[in-house]
Amino acid sequence: MAILEGKQSVLAALNARQRRFEVILVRHDAHAEKVQEVIDTAEQLGVAVRRVDAKELDSLAHGATHGGVVAICSAKHRTSVGDLITLLDSLSVREPPLLMLLEGVDDDRNLGFSLRTADAVGVHAVLIKKHLWDFDETEVARPASGAYERLPLVQIDTVEPLKQLQARGIELLGCIAGVRTTIFKADLTGPTILAIGGEKRGLSGAVRDICNGFVTIPTKVGGSSLSLSHASAIVMAEALRQRLDKESAKSDGSSV
Amino acid sequence: MAILEGKQSVLAALNARQRRFEVILVRHDAHAEKVQEVIDTAEQLGVAVRRVDAKELDSLAHGATHGGVVAICSAKHRTSVGDLITLLDSLSVREPPLLMLLEGVDDDRNLGFSLRTADAVGVHAVLIKKHLWDFDETEVARPASGAYERLPLVQIDTVEPLKQLQARGIELLGCIAGVRTTIFKADLTGPTILAIGGEKRGLSGAVRDICNGFVTIPTKVGGSSLSLSHASAIVMAEALRQRLDKESAKSDGSSV
Repeated sequence: MAILEGKQSVLAALNARQRRFEVILVRHDAHAEKVQEVIDTAEQLGVAVRRVDAKELDSLAHGATHGGVVAICSAKHRTSVGDLITLLDSLSVREPPLLMLLEGVDDDRNLGFSLRTADAVGVHAVLIKKHLWDFDETEVARPASGAYERLPLVQIDTVEPLKQLQARGIELLGCIAGVRTTIFKADLTGPTILAIGGEKRGLSGAVRDICNGFVTIPTKVGGSSLSLSHASAIVMAEALRQRLDKESAKSDGSSV
Repeated sequence: MAILEGKQSVLAALNARQRRFEVILVRHDAHAEKVQEVIDTAEQLGVAVRRVDAKELDSLAHGATHGGVVAICSAKHRTSVGDLITLLDSLSVREPPLLMLLEGVDDDRNLGFSLRTADAVGVHAVLIKKHLWDFDETEVARPASGAYERLPLVQIDTVEPLKQLQARGIELLGCIAGVRTTIFKADLTGPTILAIGGEKRGLSGAVRDICNGFVTIPTKVGGSSLSLSHASAIVMAEALRQRLDKESAKSDGSSV
């Protein structure tokens, strides 16, 4: 079971329809206009809503930012590599897979923000390589602003699943500092996994060893380094740009 | 007077040479390899270093992340609009001004991360529009990872300074949701101020009223919105891409 806190998280989870809901708890004196959308959506989906007092809500909740809405529901569905392959096979040929691999993330907020940006720019799924699925779901979900509910997350422990994806024609591109090819010159329009490493250690040797290529964000000499979530935002947005560009070139071509 | 905490902040401030240092305090038992660079840099610049015990350090410091290094120094220099204009006039003609305007930022961490990315991609200065310069310097400086020391920050209370910059040929582009022109199609290679508004209210009417144009990041329908610092990272990186592209087109042309 999981506890979701706050109107945005609960609404996103209801709309994503990935979880089984036990009950949604709404504080007695919560403003109607603030909780009505949650209540209406729950009703449509046949999820029970129960009015409770502030004490009961606070005893369940993790923090103080729930704003009078808490849900008790099943944990987020963990997407397997098999599920991911089924998902990728269902994409139209005009939409080559765009995946993000995050390795060595050690901060719930950074993970949450990276998911949010991935969801915003249309990444199909995020892979996370770590030995333990040990992040705090509530802390990740808050900055992710609904993306945690919508976006398929695949946990991998070894590089085998990456090799499986490569065998299906998906290129693994490692983002590391100092290589010659910039993200702006690399072709990110094909089926691609963009691999980003944590700020402390970067990508592991195991991942680097199987990368099809490496790309870099051309930052200013003597300037700051980028944080993981901001580096990943820039790389993902560049993939989006190239894909939109290719799409519009195609439509221009076909209209001649 | 200001207190800087941690090796990275202190080193960045020493190297930026913008502050007057009173003294640098180093914990007696701090590992030599961790603090040697600070001590060497301070010595080169004639800044006093004093060894103190943990208690004295903790009583001065804000948090527990100083790692045995704290500096007492003057506050960060506030860049005036006049200073900014002098700076912009000193740029080579091959380097059109790229400025970022942040409006309605209400989170120290978001501001810090935005400064860090701005510094990484080569933005010349950041303007902040708010009524009070009321953020917590230590909380901004930590995620900014040195950028807070290096990057000129200009506080503005009204839009008059923006008009002054516009009068010098700098375009003010407002980033807002839902407009037709994407950042990828807009020309960001000329002298430009990229204006980004806070997540709650966006850009103010006063700023919108004087914008030379509007651009949008084409996010996925039904996906997440972007956070302020990630939206600004994506827009600034796109300006960088266009500028690098133009530069390389120029050099290709001249080599023919």
